[in-house]
Amino acid sequence: MRVVLVGEASEHRENLLAAMPAAQAARTEVVDLPREAAYSSDFDHAFHPDDAVVTLRMQRGGAPLPPMRMLHVPGAGLDGIDIVRLSPETILCNVFEHEIPIAEYVLGAMLDWEIDFTALRASMTDGGWSDRYRSRTPHGELFGKTVAILGYGRIGQTVACRADAFGMRVIAVDPMMPDKTDPSGIAERIDHPRDLAEAAREADYLVVTCPLTDDSTGIVDARVLSALGTNGVVLNVSRAEVVDEGALYAALQDRTIRGASLDVWYRYPKGADDQVSPANHDFLALANVKATPHSCAWTRELSRRRYALIAANLAALEEGRPLLNRIRRDA
Amino acid sequence: MRVVLVGEASEHRENLLAAMPAAQAARTEVVDLPREAAYSSDFDHAFHPDDAVVTLRMQRGGAPLPPMRMLHVPGAGLDGIDIVRLSPETILCNVFEHEIPIAEYVLGAMLDWEIDFTALRASMTDGGWSDRYRSRTPHGELFGKTVAILGYGRIGQTVACRADAFGMRVIAVDPMMPDKTDPSGIAERIDHPRDLAEAAREADYLVVTCPLTDDSTGIVDARVLSALGTNGVVLNVSRAEVVDEGALYAALQDRTIRGASLDVWYRYPKGADDQVSPANHDFLALANVKATPHSCAWTRELSRRRYALIAANLAALEEGRPLLNRIRRDA
Repeated sequence: MRVVLVGEASEHRENLLAAMPAAQAARTEVVDLPREAAYSSDFDHAFHPDDAVVTLRMQRGGAPLPPMRMLHVPGAGLDGIDIVRLSPETILCNVFEHEIPIAEYVLGAMLDWEIDFTALRASMTDGGWSDRYRSRTPHGELFGKTVAILGYGRIGQTVACRADAFGMRVIAVDPMMPDKTDPSGIAERIDHPRDLAEAAREADYLVVTCPLTDDSTGIVDARVLSALGTNGVVLNVSRAEVVDEGALYAALQDRTIRGASLDVWYRYPKGADDQVSPANHDFLALANVKATPHSCAWTRELSRRRYALIAANLAALEEGRPLLNRIRRDA
Repeated sequence: MRVVLVGEASEHRENLLAAMPAAQAARTEVVDLPREAAYSSDFDHAFHPDDAVVTLRMQRGGAPLPPMRMLHVPGAGLDGIDIVRLSPETILCNVFEHEIPIAEYVLGAMLDWEIDFTALRASMTDGGWSDRYRSRTPHGELFGKTVAILGYGRIGQTVACRADAFGMRVIAVDPMMPDKTDPSGIAERIDHPRDLAEAAREADYLVVTCPLTDDSTGIVDARVLSALGTNGVVLNVSRAEVVDEGALYAALQDRTIRGASLDVWYRYPKGADDQVSPANHDFLALANVKATPHSCAWTRELSRRRYALIAANLAALEEGRPLLNRIRRDA
């Protein structure tokens, strides 16, 4: 089988081949195409109708995409693919796996709000071990605390399962679960987003894992943050705009909430060397903000797992077996 | 019922009374005695035979302890009580609860070794957000990694249950479980300590949670650390001396192991103002040591949980119901 890796996917040739049994690797021809092949019809001739194509983006400015047997997106988001211009014959699949590192980031961040490793470590050297040992100040625990998870999909549920192991109480908030019960039994209840302020009022931690949609934009607003209160921490690992920027900045500056762990931002660089600030307000200057550079899912293991799933799907395609993460397009 | 709080236990009068139903609190007379009452027979008259006494220490220099109905230690360790001088009639109980904060510290520390929140946060300001976003370096994951837990008692099992929720592989090492299987099904196997080097060889993290005994002193030696290897991290939340100090320092300095999270130390201050170093070697000067001041169990919630259990035991004693954590002394 011919497998075409477009743009940054071609950086993962080794991950793909390493995940294949030797026999599969031997019968797989891997072809690299540059990033431009995702956008320009000048490259249409380079795709064969029997190819499996791995790419995050495939658009022809509104014109039909070249025929191909499978288009495998090596990420979760399909926004780079002009799906309606893709032949109905083409099999479309994606990959997830980022729920694992994101959940690890969320739990690590919550534990850090409780334990404050940075301060504990600094205290070993500031002023000397003996005095510090005699005057230790107690820290907090996750056990028994409440986490509200906005967006109870793959990421939210992966967070919930770990939070549950720590003895936390879990409240989920999601519009897609109208019967309000969690099949896993972990979430105490599943609220509709219209009741987000009530969930925030009960929560010590508000974790934002929902997609950005018209409905979710700014849903964490001044009212929700006020309900979260002075013991509450916001953790955003989804999209910045789910949280109203001005309201968040005011709540943090005025300390009407305890703090925030922010991994996603209101402004991103668009090109190879432009310089933008991460937000319109100076969040980085606030002592109760723990800011990270959109890194929560960015692990060495993520790409290995994703390309291992792609390798398994390529074998399933060859052998006529069911595919993982196939996108239904009849809807 | 009269309840006598000795020394630092008297700081927890509020925790004890707050945990009692109103009727129990109303019929409980709480008496405070100073720290010296734990050591001096001058205070023997202050204890009544029907008292429940809460104290970490009770010794009379080898002489019999005053008669009392119950002695409730508000911690796990019984080394402060001269048990053989305590009347066989006196009911002896202790409390745990520290397994929860210790497990949270261990998981938080392991997540921090994978994610390195300190470096991620620093990178948001060093050199600017836009360049940092374009050049993010991937971090690691706990998922799929192996943790070896030396000492599979209450603390080790509490660590294991959380590590399991992260998709980690768990190997337990404990001399008390000769059939080598874990009733919880979490540990893949339970090795005898004589096979500790083999468990270390398979482990990314070696967590020390066993008590300090003649057998466990120095059991994590140069051979075990060499087996743990350059990807391996030691986390010690038990007693420093379980890990051979010279061997640990050499392995960290030579980077034959990846690093260590150390919360327990080789030297402690003994008095109110003496100054000692935490160890004979300068661990604090090593970049791959994350040092904290014996704080892993030291949480605000710990005392509340412990005194809630003591309040429940006092009620059970009054009502003739079975007691929690009663120490059998016929052995």
